[in-house]
Amino acid sequence: MAKNLLYAQSGGPTVVINASAAGVIAQAQQSLKFEKILAAHYGMDGILAEDFFDCSSMTNKQIDLLSKTPAAAFGSCRYHLPEQENAGDVYQKIADIFQRHNVGCFVYNGGNDSMDTCHKISKYFKQHNVDCVVVGVPKTVDNDLVETSHCPGYGSAAKYIATTMQEIALDIDVYKSGRITICEIMGRDAGWLTASTCLANLSGNGPDLIYLPEHPFDTEEFFRRAVEIFHQKKKCLVAVSEGIRDKDGNYVGASTARDSFNHAQLGGVGAFLANQITQRFGIKTRAVELSLPQRCAGHLASLADHDDAFLAGRSAVNLALLGKSGQMVALERKGDSTTCRGVDVGLVANKVKDFPKHVITDDGAGIKEEFLHYLLPLIQGEVQQTYKNGMPLYFDASVLPKV
Amino acid sequence: MAKNLLYAQSGGPTVVINASAAGVIAQAQQSLKFEKILAAHYGMDGILAEDFFDCSSMTNKQIDLLSKTPAAAFGSCRYHLPEQENAGDVYQKIADIFQRHNVGCFVYNGGNDSMDTCHKISKYFKQHNVDCVVVGVPKTVDNDLVETSHCPGYGSAAKYIATTMQEIALDIDVYKSGRITICEIMGRDAGWLTASTCLANLSGNGPDLIYLPEHPFDTEEFFRRAVEIFHQKKKCLVAVSEGIRDKDGNYVGASTARDSFNHAQLGGVGAFLANQITQRFGIKTRAVELSLPQRCAGHLASLADHDDAFLAGRSAVNLALLGKSGQMVALERKGDSTTCRGVDVGLVANKVKDFPKHVITDDGAGIKEEFLHYLLPLIQGEVQQTYKNGMPLYFDASVLPKV
Repeated sequence: MAKNLLYAQSGGPTVVINASAAGVIAQAQQSLKFEKILAAHYGMDGILAEDFFDCSSMTNKQIDLLSKTPAAAFGSCRYHLPEQENAGDVYQKIADIFQRHNVGCFVYNGGNDSMDTCHKISKYFKQHNVDCVVVGVPKTVDNDLVETSHCPGYGSAAKYIATTMQEIALDIDVYKSGRITICEIMGRDAGWLTASTCLANLSGNGPDLIYLPEHPFDTEEFFRRAVEIFHQKKKCLVAVSEGIRDKDGNYVGASTARDSFNHAQLGGVGAFLANQITQRFGIKTRAVELSLPQRCAGHLASLADHDDAFLAGRSAVNLALLGKSGQMVALERKGDSTTCRGVDVGLVANKVKDFPKHVITDDGAGIKEEFLHYLLPLIQGEVQQTYKNGMPLYFDASVLPKV
Repeated sequence: MAKNLLYAQSGGPTVVINASAAGVIAQAQQSLKFEKILAAHYGMDGILAEDFFDCSSMTNKQIDLLSKTPAAAFGSCRYHLPEQENAGDVYQKIADIFQRHNVGCFVYNGGNDSMDTCHKISKYFKQHNVDCVVVGVPKTVDNDLVETSHCPGYGSAAKYIATTMQEIALDIDVYKSGRITICEIMGRDAGWLTASTCLANLSGNGPDLIYLPEHPFDTEEFFRRAVEIFHQKKKCLVAVSEGIRDKDGNYVGASTARDSFNHAQLGGVGAFLANQITQRFGIKTRAVELSLPQRCAGHLASLADHDDAFLAGRSAVNLALLGKSGQMVALERKGDSTTCRGVDVGLVANKVKDFPKHVITDDGAGIKEEFLHYLLPLIQGEVQQTYKNGMPLYFDASVLPKV
């Protein structure tokens, strides 16, 4: 009897993670190699609870709608798999569940924490002769995975951020005399998302200053520049990464809270800097956090990003069919086309790809034009949504049968 | 010799104010009744500085691009015209400038403060036999002008807000156990924008609780409801207007700052409530301000709103040609079509149209379905933008000659 394929989502939402899910399901259906196609409800949590959607009979229309739906339609998790020696019987439990549900192929879709999980599970399965291929599909708005030229999720977030920055620039430009407006962008310790705001300058409506975590942030120098621009133009637009740090490596204006992976909880640096400017220089300011829409604005998805995500999902199934356990799908975009290859998922696990420092301007407050050669192909085209009641129509996984 | 038409923008940006500008320019061109079509650079400030764009020779392509551009392409102002007795020679100065530039028709596009300006100027012109017709075009995302069934700008803001709320609902739904997420919506003392979030519930992905300024906000009762929903669903999504007040009429969590019209500076109530919940109940929260994109997200403009704004601009020119000075264009939408009529601008000046209390649910935490009959026609259809470099292409008024 043919085995089942199990797909699971992990980590924070992106606009196109479901396009990867759609790619996995479409390719698995077409391959005719699997008995059932399952999707875990809430990622690893769903696996451990044996809570699965049955996607085997999804129609092409459903798969298409899924592919255009933002966030994580099957539910995600922030599950951290400990090392084997500290994990009790978790690894064996996973193996047992997979065996019980006849899972011969596991496709895990997530960021670098999730690739660590992929790596550990595939290693355990090999060591213990568990007959299940484990393949990773990259996903993150932060674009901070190594070995792949870019990550599905980044292009759509970049397109939303650049477009929104352009629109905010038009907004703050309406008055002769305005404010210093500071927009805080996601991305943790990687400046890829914040760097995408430089796109807006192509239309002449972009940020005056752009600050990334990869360059030490000098608060006094920032105040000097922002105030100078404000006095010159009567307004100033700043893009700042949530993860900027001072020369000693401390987050600027961040709280000390930590998440379940012991990552610092970021957010608030824009408001912190804006308040400081108002207090010290008496200049009107506004802080804008682009916030959650950066990673879920399905109404402005990049078609190139969507297509890459779908392709990555299909490629994962192909890698699995070739028996390439312990690999992640890596992407290479050249102009209009993307190719995929398998890379050792252990090379990706827990690593962070920094933004290339050489494309940051020498003053640390801008991005060189050469970065656009990298970025522009990733944000081309718009996913055409179907609208119902004036809003995009999205897929709801609860219509699927449970196993 | 034919006289000139002067158009000016005022108040905060909207997504479709430039569609009204485009309607004015297109209709003025077609009428062949005007020597020149001028647009003030920065509204009343531009008038007093005699700083005008010449729109007489704008091409159809330029007018079309202008109509799809958010914010205020000619620049806006927050100019407050005092009563005649306190205004020194300002009224006479405006009359002199209009005479010097041969302005026989003045179209002013703004909210209730701007309609007050329209009213005062038209009254002065009549009293002093200044040969210039003054017509107002409504504009505000807040939808709070009286005499018109709805305001251009509201539909697009509502469409963006409802869509974004739906996407945020999908985002916060990805984890089995989430947070209490509080989204703060614009609208000052009127709950129209916040009410539009109820649309998202049509897809099953909307806020659990919706709070408008028109219903006294009971903080303790809110905490009780939000915490109860959180314990039930492991997540809770709240939409709250920036202008909610307690039973004594005090803004909840607002600062005491005032703007140039002596309006309270709002913003921050979402973060205030989120912090309180975390401190008192130890529940993870997130505050999201939808912020500036609510009024400038041209990438998600409502086609119905755009068309209404354009029509309002055209109708203003028609009213002017009929000599109807001191009138504002009022809209009436019935199903797919909108009609326009002139109303006395004095009836609109400085008044605020409250959200109808009878469509707020009895507990003050939701919107009744009957509101959708009003809202749905206003958000239908999507303005198709032209994309360049992966971003919408917008009009730049600096290409126009100055007078």
